[in-house]
Amino acid sequence: MSTRPPTTGTNRTEIAVDPDVPLVRITRTFDAPPNKVFRAHTDPELLARWLGPRSTEMRVEHFDCRTGGSYRYLHTTCEGFEAWFHGSFHEVRPAELIVQTFTFEGVPDGVALERLVFEDLGDGRTRLVATSLVDSFADRDAFVASGMEVGVIEGYERLDELLSAGAA
Amino acid sequence: MSTRPPTTGTNRTEIAVDPDVPLVRITRTFDAPPNKVFRAHTDPELLARWLGPRSTEMRVEHFDCRTGGSYRYLHTTCEGFEAWFHGSFHEVRPAELIVQTFTFEGVPDGVALERLVFEDLGDGRTRLVATSLVDSFADRDAFVASGMEVGVIEGYERLDELLSAGAA
Repeated sequence: MSTRPPTTGTNRTEIAVDPDVPLVRITRTFDAPPNKVFRAHTDPELLARWLGPRSTEMRVEHFDCRTGGSYRYLHTTCEGFEAWFHGSFHEVRPAELIVQTFTFEGVPDGVALERLVFEDLGDGRTRLVATSLVDSFADRDAFVASGMEVGVIEGYERLDELLSAGAA
Repeated sequence: MSTRPPTTGTNRTEIAVDPDVPLVRITRTFDAPPNKVFRAHTDPELLARWLGPRSTEMRVEHFDCRTGGSYRYLHTTCEGFEAWFHGSFHEVRPAELIVQTFTFEGVPDGVALERLVFEDLGDGRTRLVATSLVDSFADRDAFVASGMEVGVIEGYERLDELLSAGAA
C-alpha cells in the first residue's frame, strides 16, 4: 500500500536578491490551481486571513484589485504597533498576473514596484513568483535585512492552510 | 539700461542614465512656479497640449491624477501610427510629487515606475526631476536608444510655450 505524503507544509519559500538590479524575488509553490491562489490574493476578506505573520491582525481600508484600482490596509502587531500600507494596481490579469506599487507608510517616500506571476504547473499546483523592485541597492538590502522573511514565510503557511481547508 | 534676457527657450533638458540601477533621470527647469508646472501635468486638457513630440496628436481616454487613480491615453503620429499608454497613480502630492506607473501597450509586459519631483527654486521657477525605473539595464538602454529624447525635449518646449502664454 502506498500513501501519498502530505503536501501542505512541505513547500519552501525561496527569497533571493538579484545580483544586477535592486530587486527581491520570492518563489513559492502552492498545492492549489492558479485561480484559487489568485483569488486568495485579490479577495480582501481572504487576503486578511493570511497576509503577514501570525502575530498580526490585518484590517483592509480599501482593496480594489483591478487594473487602475488601489488599496490600503493596516497591520497591527500583538504589541499594538500599527503599520499602514498602500499602493495602486497597475495591471491585473485574472489567474495570471498582478502588477502593483507598494509603500510602507512609515517610510512615506519609499515605493516598490511589485509583480506577481501565477504560473500553472499543470498538476493542480501553482508556482508564484513575486518580485519587488526599488531604486537603490541600499533600500533593497535594508528591506531584506528587516526580518521581512518571517512575515512572508508565515503568511504563505497561513495561505497553505486556507487553501487546504477549501476556504479559498 | 539693462535688459533681462529672454528665458523661455533657454532651459536645457538633461537626460542621464544612472550607472548603478536601471533608471533614467530627466532634469528640466521651467520659468513658472511649481503649482503651474504641476497643473500642466495633472489637468488632462493641458497635458494633451504639450506631452510628446510636435508631430503627434494626443487623445486622453481617462486621466484621474490623484493618489489611487489611473490613466490611459493615445498618441497618434502624423503617419497614423497609434501608441496607447496606461498606468496608475501611486501617489500625488499637489505641486510636489507624482509617483506613477507607465506602460507602452506595444510592449504590454513592460512597466516603469516613474517619480516626478517638482522643486521650487524660489524665484518663480521650478526644477522638475523625472526618474523612470525598470527591472533591467537592457530595457532601460533600449528605451533611451529608441529616440525618446525627441519627444521629451519637444514636449518640454511645448510646455514652455503653454506656460509663457499663460495657458497653464
